[in-house]
Amino acid sequence: MPFLDACRSRKTSRVPVWYMRQAGRYQPEYREIRKNYSLLEICERPELCAQVTSLPVTQLGVDAAILFSDIMVPVGPMGVKYEIVEGRGPVVAHPLRTRQDVDALHGFDVHDALPYVLETIERVKDRISVPLIGFAGAPFTLASYMIEGGPSRDYLHTKAMMHGEPDMFSNLMAKLSEMVIYYLRAQITAGADAVQVFDSWAGSLSPKDYEMHILPHMQRIFNALSEDEAPSIYFGVGTGELLPLFKTLKANVIGVDWRVSIRAARERVGSSHAIQGNLDPALLLAPFDVLKARTAEILAEGMEKPGFIFNLGHGVFPAASTDTLRRLTEFVHEFSEARLNYS
Amino acid sequence: MPFLDACRSRKTSRVPVWYMRQAGRYQPEYREIRKNYSLLEICERPELCAQVTSLPVTQLGVDAAILFSDIMVPVGPMGVKYEIVEGRGPVVAHPLRTRQDVDALHGFDVHDALPYVLETIERVKDRISVPLIGFAGAPFTLASYMIEGGPSRDYLHTKAMMHGEPDMFSNLMAKLSEMVIYYLRAQITAGADAVQVFDSWAGSLSPKDYEMHILPHMQRIFNALSEDEAPSIYFGVGTGELLPLFKTLKANVIGVDWRVSIRAARERVGSSHAIQGNLDPALLLAPFDVLKARTAEILAEGMEKPGFIFNLGHGVFPAASTDTLRRLTEFVHEFSEARLNYS
Repeated sequence: MPFLDACRSRKTSRVPVWYMRQAGRYQPEYREIRKNYSLLEICERPELCAQVTSLPVTQLGVDAAILFSDIMVPVGPMGVKYEIVEGRGPVVAHPLRTRQDVDALHGFDVHDALPYVLETIERVKDRISVPLIGFAGAPFTLASYMIEGGPSRDYLHTKAMMHGEPDMFSNLMAKLSEMVIYYLRAQITAGADAVQVFDSWAGSLSPKDYEMHILPHMQRIFNALSEDEAPSIYFGVGTGELLPLFKTLKANVIGVDWRVSIRAARERVGSSHAIQGNLDPALLLAPFDVLKARTAEILAEGMEKPGFIFNLGHGVFPAASTDTLRRLTEFVHEFSEARLNYS
Repeated sequence: MPFLDACRSRKTSRVPVWYMRQAGRYQPEYREIRKNYSLLEICERPELCAQVTSLPVTQLGVDAAILFSDIMVPVGPMGVKYEIVEGRGPVVAHPLRTRQDVDALHGFDVHDALPYVLETIERVKDRISVPLIGFAGAPFTLASYMIEGGPSRDYLHTKAMMHGEPDMFSNLMAKLSEMVIYYLRAQITAGADAVQVFDSWAGSLSPKDYEMHILPHMQRIFNALSEDEAPSIYFGVGTGELLPLFKTLKANVIGVDWRVSIRAARERVGSSHAIQGNLDPALLLAPFDVLKARTAEILAEGMEKPGFIFNLGHGVFPAASTDTLRRLTEFVHEFSEARLNYS
């Protein structure tokens, strides 16, 4: 299993590859399903969700599947009402702003509240032979949606709570951290072979703020997850300056975006983590020879040491084509196989 | 003049301070004016625009004024029709996508096309005793609005042109570069004491893409500007990984956002540039003691060497208060004066 070996920084015969948001609107089959079902309706139907989760494995030839879901799914049973608005993202009916709002958040039994997530995982495992990645949003990124009430450019309310009500913010982060640990463990028990924690918006924080307000919670999460067999991945956008802080996290893999080179990422994060990334998804619209040249540069740096997983630096967007992604997967495999098995 | 001395990396008796978007919606006086005039209508009325430009100097006690304008203003006379849409930003009627679109862009005589910009500068100089900063958008950031048709999260069309039609993209960048040089020189001739080039979205590029497609044009601009007496500032958001490339730019000052520390910025950009920045504007909503503590940390690093200008890491947002900014200016002055004149 090249993907799981790479997660554990072991030698592999080729560079494994998967794509964030590899199941989604860019696929004609997915668009067809979305004519009849909303995103959340797909999540709630294990057979359909397993089909959506598995499709990229056969269609693109990737080395891992990732559970089709949304980071907001486990926030619902904590007591947060939200919708996924097309073209905008998660929108929360009553943004969290007060101590009472935070106190009102409660735990849940995943078997009662989200049985379909676990059933989807079981069904996916019957369908595919590559590893399945479970996932959760990280506390800061979840909190940003809950506090802002939706997607944001500047996270002003979230940062205002962090600076102005640090105890309340820390309490919220702690509640979300416990949920993330519980939810990911349930996914692992159901069959997930690895887990990725998406902290998409952590890069909006200064290193100082991250260190003070976020890092202790991420340490708690990855300490807990390190007791499990399944390797863990931590991903964020624009985290170049935070990577030295990620050294202290017991995540197996750090995912980076295209703003930082693989070599710089390895230097900053230290040798005990594998690296995942980091093609600018915009290159999926470039001529294929440009896409190949940039991919080859990333692979060359990635293969300098064991522990590298090829991915995009952020999710696939709707205008991408399945054909380009399929050819890209082939290129990653052929290019890396030729070099890793020669030396 | 602490601001101009700091631009030239000379010793100053205090750290100079100004704020990006220091004239704007957060000011009650500005909101009052906007009841009767749109943003562009203010730009076109020299007396009103000079008043708006000068207000922060008296209101906040800052060490420099910056021309009130919009980066799209000089793009209009090149043949691009645009509007500034409230709460969204610049919207271009016919996004640039073809060779013909690029070929159609033309030069202009600033005295004929934008006489009000030059007249505003002259009037501001009569009103204030601190230096006036002129400004222009950088070619990549301007091109992103022109190609996307408005603000963007992922710059897919811009990057598609850059990768797929590199000659056409380079031609567009060259045309915009010549305009920026011409327009900033006209501002300097009219009385601007320094100029800032806003490349707000350059941080969306990988270092490789920036180096290949953007850097040569920025070298051309700052080489040309270095022949003038007025110092030049280059600012972008999320440019931490691009700073080593900025070493080759003859800009006097590099502006950075809060994602990178002042010390790291200095190390990467080298000793021949002053540094400007970099408080997270979100801290303007924090309790004042938190704001002060973070500002003191930035100042301590900034004062390690001559050549530091205090600023935010991005523009002031509408929910900020004039009182907080005034107190912050005082704090920067008092804190730095006490330390710089002791040693």
